[in-house]
Amino acid sequence: MSAPAGPPRRLRLGMVGGGRGAFIGEAHRIAARIDDRYELVAGAFSLDPYRAIESGHDLRLDPTRCYTDYRGMAQAEATRPDGAEVVSVVTPNASHHAICKTFLEAGIDVICDKPLAANLTEAKDLLETARRTGRFLGVTYNYSAYPLMREARALIEAGALGAVRVVQVEFALGWLSTLAESDSKQARWRTDPIQAGPSLVTADLGTHCFHLAEFVTRRRIDALSADLAIMVPGRRLEDNAQISLRFDNGARGAMWVSMVAAGEQVGLRLRVYGELGHIAWDQSEPDQMRLALQGEAVRTIVRGGSGLSAASKRATRLVAGLPEGYYEAFATLYRDYADILTARHAGTAPDPLALLAPGVEDGVRGVAFVEAALQSGVQGGAWVAMPGSGPD
Amino acid sequence: MSAPAGPPRRLRLGMVGGGRGAFIGEAHRIAARIDDRYELVAGAFSLDPYRAIESGHDLRLDPTRCYTDYRGMAQAEATRPDGAEVVSVVTPNASHHAICKTFLEAGIDVICDKPLAANLTEAKDLLETARRTGRFLGVTYNYSAYPLMREARALIEAGALGAVRVVQVEFALGWLSTLAESDSKQARWRTDPIQAGPSLVTADLGTHCFHLAEFVTRRRIDALSADLAIMVPGRRLEDNAQISLRFDNGARGAMWVSMVAAGEQVGLRLRVYGELGHIAWDQSEPDQMRLALQGEAVRTIVRGGSGLSAASKRATRLVAGLPEGYYEAFATLYRDYADILTARHAGTAPDPLALLAPGVEDGVRGVAFVEAALQSGVQGGAWVAMPGSGPD
Amino acid sequence: MSAPAGPPRRLRLGMVGGGRGAFIGEAHRIAARIDDRYELVAGAFSLDPYRAIESGHDLRLDPTRCYTDYRGMAQAEATRPDGAEVVSVVTPNASHHAICKTFLEAGIDVICDKPLAANLTEAKDLLETARRTGRFLGVTYNYSAYPLMREARALIEAGALGAVRVVQVEFALGWLSTLAESDSKQARWRTDPIQAGPSLVTADLGTHCFHLAEFVTRRRIDALSADLAIMVPGRRLEDNAQISLRFDNGARGAMWVSMVAAGEQVGLRLRVYGELGHIAWDQSEPDQMRLALQGEAVRTIVRGGSGLSAASKRATRLVAGLPEGYYEAFATLYRDYADILTARHAGTAPDPLALLAPGVEDGVRGVAFVEAALQSGVQGGAWVAMPGSGPD
Amino acid sequence: MSAPAGPPRRLRLGMVGGGRGAFIGEAHRIAARIDDRYELVAGAFSLDPYRAIESGHDLRLDPTRCYTDYRGMAQAEATRPDGAEVVSVVTPNASHHAICKTFLEAGIDVICDKPLAANLTEAKDLLETARRTGRFLGVTYNYSAYPLMREARALIEAGALGAVRVVQVEFALGWLSTLAESDSKQARWRTDPIQAGPSLVTADLGTHCFHLAEFVTRRRIDALSADLAIMVPGRRLEDNAQISLRFDNGARGAMWVSMVAAGEQVGLRLRVYGELGHIAWDQSEPDQMRLALQGEAVRTIVRGGSGLSAASKRATRLVAGLPEGYYEAFATLYRDYADILTARHAGTAPDPLALLAPGVEDGVRGVAFVEAALQSGVQGGAWVAMPGSGPD
Repeated sequence: MSAPAGPPRRLRLGMVGGGRGAFIGEAHRIAARIDDRYELVAGAFSLDPYRAIESGHDLRLDPTRCYTDYRGMAQAEATRPDGAEVVSVVTPNASHHAICKTFLEAGIDVICDKPLAANLTEAKDLLETARRTGRFLGVTYNYSAYPLMREARALIEAGALGAVRVVQVEFALGWLSTLAESDSKQARWRTDPIQAGPSLVTADLGTHCFHLAEFVTRRRIDALSADLAIMVPGRRLEDNAQISLRFDNGARGAMWVSMVAAGEQVGLRLRVYGELGHIAWDQSEPDQMRLALQGEAVRTIVRGGSGLSAASKRATRLVAGLPEGYYEAFATLYRDYADILTARHAGTAPDPLALLAPGVEDGVRGVAFVEAALQSGVQGGAWVAMPGSGPD
Repeated sequence: MSAPAGPPRRLRLGMVGGGRGAFIGEAHRIAARIDDRYELVAGAFSLDPYRAIESGHDLRLDPTRCYTDYRGMAQAEATRPDGAEVVSVVTPNASHHAICKTFLEAGIDVICDKPLAANLTEAKDLLETARRTGRFLGVTYNYSAYPLMREARALIEAGALGAVRVVQVEFALGWLSTLAESDSKQARWRTDPIQAGPSLVTADLGTHCFHLAEFVTRRRIDALSADLAIMVPGRRLEDNAQISLRFDNGARGAMWVSMVAAGEQVGLRLRVYGELGHIAWDQSEPDQMRLALQGEAVRTIVRGGSGLSAASKRATRLVAGLPEGYYEAFATLYRDYADILTARHAGTAPDPLALLAPGVEDGVRGVAFVEAALQSGVQGGAWVAMPGSGPD
Repeated sequence: MSAPAGPPRRLRLGMVGGGRGAFIGEAHRIAARIDDRYELVAGAFSLDPYRAIESGHDLRLDPTRCYTDYRGMAQAEATRPDGAEVVSVVTPNASHHAICKTFLEAGIDVICDKPLAANLTEAKDLLETARRTGRFLGVTYNYSAYPLMREARALIEAGALGAVRVVQVEFALGWLSTLAESDSKQARWRTDPIQAGPSLVTADLGTHCFHLAEFVTRRRIDALSADLAIMVPGRRLEDNAQISLRFDNGARGAMWVSMVAAGEQVGLRLRVYGELGHIAWDQSEPDQMRLALQGEAVRTIVRGGSGLSAASKRATRLVAGLPEGYYEAFATLYRDYADILTARHAGTAPDPLALLAPGVEDGVRGVAFVEAALQSGVQGGAWVAMPGSGPD
Repeated sequence: MSAPAGPPRRLRLGMVGGGRGAFIGEAHRIAARIDDRYELVAGAFSLDPYRAIESGHDLRLDPTRCYTDYRGMAQAEATRPDGAEVVSVVTPNASHHAICKTFLEAGIDVICDKPLAANLTEAKDLLETARRTGRFLGVTYNYSAYPLMREARALIEAGALGAVRVVQVEFALGWLSTLAESDSKQARWRTDPIQAGPSLVTADLGTHCFHLAEFVTRRRIDALSADLAIMVPGRRLEDNAQISLRFDNGARGAMWVSMVAAGEQVGLRLRVYGELGHIAWDQSEPDQMRLALQGEAVRTIVRGGSGLSAASKRATRLVAGLPEGYYEAFATLYRDYADILTARHAGTAPDPLALLAPGVEDGVRGVAFVEAALQSGVQGGAWVAMPGSGPD
């Protein structure tokens, strides 16, 4: 009797950014931990040496692998036999390009938070770099990993709604209803053009909406008209945007992204209307999705329920009725990336469903969207065609 | 001991349109009946003589007062001592101007369904006619009569949300997802430019949204950018519109109106975000409204609950928890109009809260909105300023 | 060409109770008005002569038909050629028996609010009286007239849930969380054994639940175990009851009725579980009902939606998505009673669906339930069989 | 400058039960992993040697520490210097006593799934054993670890609802609506008196409800009346129970537990009514809780929102609006147990809030409840006093 096939070995993970107290770094770490496919081995958690060590200490890391400089980390880890194989980049947006490029060049795969880069030139350069080096570059549009967003995609692909006609998507937060950047560190960098790049809500929230809309509908947005506004006096980047959308098949849509939507917590909501009916989903109750077909009773699709697609089943851990949440969806991305990387190491093809996890092309496309929206905004809401998103 | 002051006498009501099987005519009649302030005495229910008589018979009307021609009705009723004092006009949109004008000129007050007219010239002419004849002309934007829409207005007026920043409003139906006009009489006239005028969803649904947004916020929309589309091949008027809004205080907004929103029934929803929080309301559950103030637990305001404004209390009949609906809101308009007309007859001032019921100026403004949206649509979504809405 | 068949003539309606300011009398009047099948002609609105006249004056009644004494009213109206044909009885519970009996004996039909009587002896006497005099006696369990409760009954009758196994029903109000009877007139009579009879929540709320459970399931409750409590010190009747139920087919259930459920408004909720799935309904959102079949996505059945039963369609006025409420359901009872009475006058059979409106047998059964619950309560929660509910 | 204080070392964890495909074992493992406070080192996953090895292999365990027999595991691990310090027991109910006792006697702490034992004698013996050996024994009533259940407890403790008057709690599944035990392994053991003990729903679901009700209210249930039923022919244990409750302060309540509630997934719902208002919570949307105070607008309390108690904040990882779920609540128990055990090892006191995690006394009390309910059921629903739950 031969030994049963074991689980794949854990991938050696590094992290750039995500020091003590950082929200998104901790989310990436818990996501990596849930399915036990990674082992955190190194990090450049902070530019401040004390904080870098302290943050690594919290994570029981070897102090010699707690770096203050991502370049040093890339060099050191790339040369160790037990070095990090993949790094998570969870720093402010404007630094993504330099950091990702460094690791790719060092032969290390990368999982980068969104948006991929501060502008389209940088984003395309990362696409080119990834292709040239043969490294993997994933971009964590984590909301599309919720099981029911994968179910929505599968439903639409199967024709359940007929041709898509209208997409309504919004991501509304009340977080920056006041000039919070005077008090909060996270608010400060996000509203600072030097650290965040040229956009606030379009980049931070709009890229999620854009990806989700294209992911679920499998259609491309090809033009948009944006009305960008700064609602809070003293702020330097747009905190509210109303964006009209046109899709490649003639469908229309509207996107609203705002950080001045007082009273909202994490108001990410998507509705897709086709010829036959619509789906509606709200991130704050991610385990249910409305499916309303014209002339039939509205159905509530529940994660884990019977009759769901392979795509959503694969992203599901618990039976219907026991809630999963934000970490589990994020963990699905990490598990997908682990499958992709493990298959690469083995020279095999990953489960095709793992490829639902967004890659560098999706990252480039999101940055192209931000540029188009900014351009429309400058032109007083003129309709702007989406730029091509391949390498130049 | 003197006799107690009695209730005002019933007003003698006529109706134009609303023959057997018509939806909106029956709604007006039930609305008029609920508070027992009107007595239906005459009608021109149909151009078809048999149907006109038959419809009047259903309503136990004197056959001699069942007209086939609104002109004859106006003349006859204006000269009878017991003639109709006020008529409800519930015909297809494009006929509103001629009918309303005829009755106003005959000295009879008018309650007209929305939109007031097929174009701004006609609408302004009705405004001028009403002023000249001294007659009353109400326009039944019935949704603003829901108690919680009056509460929302009172809350915002009292500063509960701070300055308004963003308005999201939509009215989405799935009714015309297919080319229903080939089968359904109501679908046929609404999609026929001759009977309906030059707009479908903007006129039929957009005017409700427009009125509601201005009514609740007490701000004026002063510019808009519209993306109008015909989604169902063979249709002659726009069945989907995405409209970006700018308000006179710098607030932004988006309106979506659609009759191709498959799976929606009567999806009229309004959200208003201010500096401090937002309100959210859905017509299909009209007795509750979300009030979310930044940093506080979301509250569900319930019609009839304690602490509500005089404006919503006056529009409330039942205790909190016993549901009111569409007819009761419509009845509130009829009661308000009865109060206004009764006060006019007595030469006194009505309860100021009765004046929340929309009048001819609101009707003109709605038609101005439709014209602006059509103009923006023709110009590829250019921002168009709202035309002045006073008489020229 | 013969004249089209007209609508039936309006029935001449009288009312006992329901003076100025009374809630339930006004509800009966609006219910009677909505479908225009009744004309209010007389009333004994109050024992206080001034209030009796004043209340009639509010309703534009002839002062000579505003009585202070129901006996005088019965005698006078029974002998007028244009006298009331049917009276609504909306007085405190303990007076129902004497009033209903007087009108039945005078040859006048009766629509009585629930509970029918203060004890089973009285209730059975009314059943006997109605049979003997050949008069009609309806009992307004108004909640079973909501269209979706009729839909639920039709669904279960059609086998959609399989055999019923569990019924959970509750009617919870916060109204009497404090000793409100010291301030409020309505609270005073309801908590006074002389006016209300021997039960508070079991009679006022429990009879609704009991009727609804039997109406929807078409099964009979045949035993119960009740835990009755007085939660507010100083109160004289039970303000909270937990009642376990057994049905004639072996199904089990629980009923909770309370007026000390602080924070509840009108918390009437019903769930019925069968072998295949369940329905769930909440009176405060009466236009929707959950239908959950095991192994399928939950469906939301909407009043007016396609595919609904004849029984609920007949009780529906508005299209799906435009809300109906409490008055419309109550009006359905009045319309049903009008159909029944009009058919009796014509010597024909009414629409069988009109017979869904509850009659005297349902009234007797509700009183039998109250007696059984009180008996169980006295015996420390012993299981008590429901008494027979026919005439002795 | 001294090194920053590090995180506590990981506890060495073993597991009994939870082989490949088992649901609850995997939940315990993920829960243990999320906060990185445990390292899984050994397991007796199955009595079947191949499956035991295979299950350990899936988890990358040393094959020499994959046992088939928990006794051998206890002996071996207790004597290794790197042996398991704490074991999770996730086997069928009837085996809990023997397994827990074995590990406690071997000096190893235990985290046991609920119910603690198959009868009160066994449960009390475990309490006595834990006290005698000085070992810790936690019982995973995981639902009370949801942040908002801790918030509810804190609110009630702070007097927000006044004295508790009514508790309505239910746990309804549709899972066993048919005789699923003929096909499903998990259904088989749970409905088999030999493996499950003498109760199905009362033990499996009722103990959760019982614990939650007492945990949140901080009151004790002191008597109950149970109506137990077998609804599916051929089943050997009760699959539906209606239980009336009386609390030590005079409050009343009802519990409904069922596995034949067709169409329900995980219908665990709790409502607590006090003098001033109530809270309502549904496990399937665990991040929100209704707080309804009489005379005020209903508030929706959201996990992570501002103004929440220290108890719920400590159990919260994500900001309000990003959903947490079942695993995170379970992980909170594991983190609490880690805090308790780490403090014991250090000879210090744990954070008092960690002691909200249920211990052996809570386990005993749950088993006492099951015995009382069975006794009442046998006596035809007689009221039975809860037995004392201390050691005899």
